[in-house]
Amino acid sequence: MTPVPVAIGPVDSPLLAEAVTRGGGHVTSLDQAHALVWDAGTEGFPASLPASVHWVQLFSAGVEEWFAAGVIARHPDVVWTSAAGAFSATVTEHALTLLLAGVRSLPDQITATTWRQQEFFGRVGTLRGACVGILGAGGIGRALVPMLTAVGATVVAVNRSGTPVPGAEVTLPASRADEMWDRIDHVVIAAPATADTRHLVGAPELGRLGPASWVVNVARGSLVDTDALVAALRDGAIGGAGLDVTDPEPLPDGHPLWSLPNAIVTPHCSNPPAVRPPAFADHVATNVARFAAGEPLIARIDPAAGY
Amino acid sequence: MTPVPVAIGPVDSPLLAEAVTRGGGHVTSLDQAHALVWDAGTEGFPASLPASVHWVQLFSAGVEEWFAAGVIARHPDVVWTSAAGAFSATVTEHALTLLLAGVRSLPDQITATTWRQQEFFGRVGTLRGACVGILGAGGIGRALVPMLTAVGATVVAVNRSGTPVPGAEVTLPASRADEMWDRIDHVVIAAPATADTRHLVGAPELGRLGPASWVVNVARGSLVDTDALVAALRDGAIGGAGLDVTDPEPLPDGHPLWSLPNAIVTPHCSNPPAVRPPAFADHVATNVARFAAGEPLIARIDPAAGY
Repeated sequence: MTPVPVAIGPVDSPLLAEAVTRGGGHVTSLDQAHALVWDAGTEGFPASLPASVHWVQLFSAGVEEWFAAGVIARHPDVVWTSAAGAFSATVTEHALTLLLAGVRSLPDQITATTWRQQEFFGRVGTLRGACVGILGAGGIGRALVPMLTAVGATVVAVNRSGTPVPGAEVTLPASRADEMWDRIDHVVIAAPATADTRHLVGAPELGRLGPASWVVNVARGSLVDTDALVAALRDGAIGGAGLDVTDPEPLPDGHPLWSLPNAIVTPHCSNPPAVRPPAFADHVATNVARFAAGEPLIARIDPAAGY
Repeated sequence: MTPVPVAIGPVDSPLLAEAVTRGGGHVTSLDQAHALVWDAGTEGFPASLPASVHWVQLFSAGVEEWFAAGVIARHPDVVWTSAAGAFSATVTEHALTLLLAGVRSLPDQITATTWRQQEFFGRVGTLRGACVGILGAGGIGRALVPMLTAVGATVVAVNRSGTPVPGAEVTLPASRADEMWDRIDHVVIAAPATADTRHLVGAPELGRLGPASWVVNVARGSLVDTDALVAALRDGAIGGAGLDVTDPEPLPDGHPLWSLPNAIVTPHCSNPPAVRPPAFADHVATNVARFAAGEPLIARIDPAAGY
C-alpha cells in the first residue's frame, strides 16, 4: 500500500511525524497532502486548504473555537476529527492507581516511619477476586475494564443504555444503577456531570458498601455528596476514597478531606499537560491507519451538531 | 465428563469446595476420592492414604516439613503438588501498585494539605508508552507483564535463560542483563536472592536510569545496594523507589529510607495472610481442572530433589 501523504502543521513535530509513519502515512508538505494534522489552535490555520486534503485532525477534544471562527463551515468537503477520547488512557491509569493505592493501604504505609508489618498484614487487600463497579462506562470507564481484569478483578459496569461493555461481567443501564451497589466491593466514578448525576453517590449508596470498600472519583466532584462521603470516611463505614476531583474544587485549605487518613486527594491532575502530546500522537497514529484503510475515523466532528 | 472425586482435609472449607467444583471436581470423602487437597501442616495427615488417591495438593509453597516428616517417602505412588507460585499474583499486584504510585507522584500528593495543581501538573507521569525492565521474570515477573501492557507500557524482561517471556517486547538472558539499563524508564526487581544476585542493582545501574525513573523491589532487599539507592534518591538521580523489601530488614527506625519523600517503604506485606486463602483456592481450581483433563499439574513436587 502506498503511504498516505500527511502534512503536519503549523510546525514540524518529530513526535507526530513518528505517529504518522507508525499509522502507515508519510509526512509531506501541505500542497502534496491528503490529510493535515494540526497541532495548534485556529490562529495561523491556512485560509484555504488544497483540494487534495480530505481530512483534518485537530489537537483538542473541545472544538468550539473552530466552529466559532467559521473554519469548519469554510471547508464543507473536508472530514474533521477532534482529539476526543485521546486523553482517556491517562485518566484511566490514574483511577487504577488510586484504587490500588487504597486497597493496598498505601497512604498509611507512605506516612509510616517504623516497620509496622503485623498491622499492615491485616490491612493490605487485593483487587484480585474483587468486584469493581464502574459508574459511567464511557471512554474512561471502558478503558479501565481491561486494566482491572488484568489484576484479576471482575467488573459491573453501568452506562446509559446498558449496552454490554466488553470485559465486564455485567453491564447495567443507568436506570438500574441501583442494583450495582450490593454486588460490588469498590466503585470508580467516571460518569459525566449532568443535572441527573449530581450526588449520584450519597449516603444511601455509600451505606451499601463495606468497611474495606474504596470509592474513586476521576469524573467531577459534583457526582459525590461530599458531606456524606466525609461522614462515611470518618465512621469507617467505607475503607477510603481516592479523589482526583472534589466538590468544592479547588478543595479549600482546612477541608476535612485533606486530613482524613483514608482519603487520597490529587488536585485534578489525572491528565497532566506533559502526558498529552504522546497521547495525541497515539490518536493520530490510529486515525492515519484508519484513513489509509478507508475505515471510519475516531472522534469525527459533526458539523451540524457543532462538536 | 464425570466430575473428579476430591477430598478436602483436615476440615471442611467452603472456599476450597467452591474451587474444587470450579475446577470440574466434586467434593467427597477420602475413601471415595482420587485426590486430596490438604489445607494444613503435617500434623493430622492420614497415616496412610486409600489406594484410590493419586494426587495430594499441599497448602504451602515450601514443603520441607513434609519431607522431614517422611510423609512423601511413605507414598511413592502419589503425585504431590505444593502451592509454589500460587501467591505470585498478590506480589505482582503490589509491584504494579508501587510503580504506579511512584510514577503518578502519589506520595507527595497523599501528604499534601493544599491544592498544588500546577506543581503536580509537572510531576504526574504515566506508564503509558514507558518501558519497564523486569529483572527476574519468574512467576511474579511473568505475571506482571500483562498488567503493564494493559496500562500501555512495554516490557524488557530478563531471566536466566533468555527464553522469551510472553508479552515482553524483548527478553534478555541474565548474562546480557547489562543491556537492559539503557533501554528502560523504570525497573521492577523480582529475581531470587542468591550469591549472584547480591547488589545486582548498585550505583552503576542506578546511574543509567533517569530523574523520573522508579525502582521497585518486591524480591529481597539484598538485590539492591541500599547505600547507593539512598544516594540516588537524595540526589534526585532517580525519581524514586518503591520497596516492599529492604536491606537491612526490618528497616530500623531512623533509617533515611523512612524520611526520603521519594521512597515508599511497605513492610514486606505484599503477600499478606488474608489474601492467601483465595489465592490458594485459585491454585486448587487450576490443578483440579488439569488433573481432570490429564494435564501436567502445576508445582509438582520432585521427591528426589526434595522440593
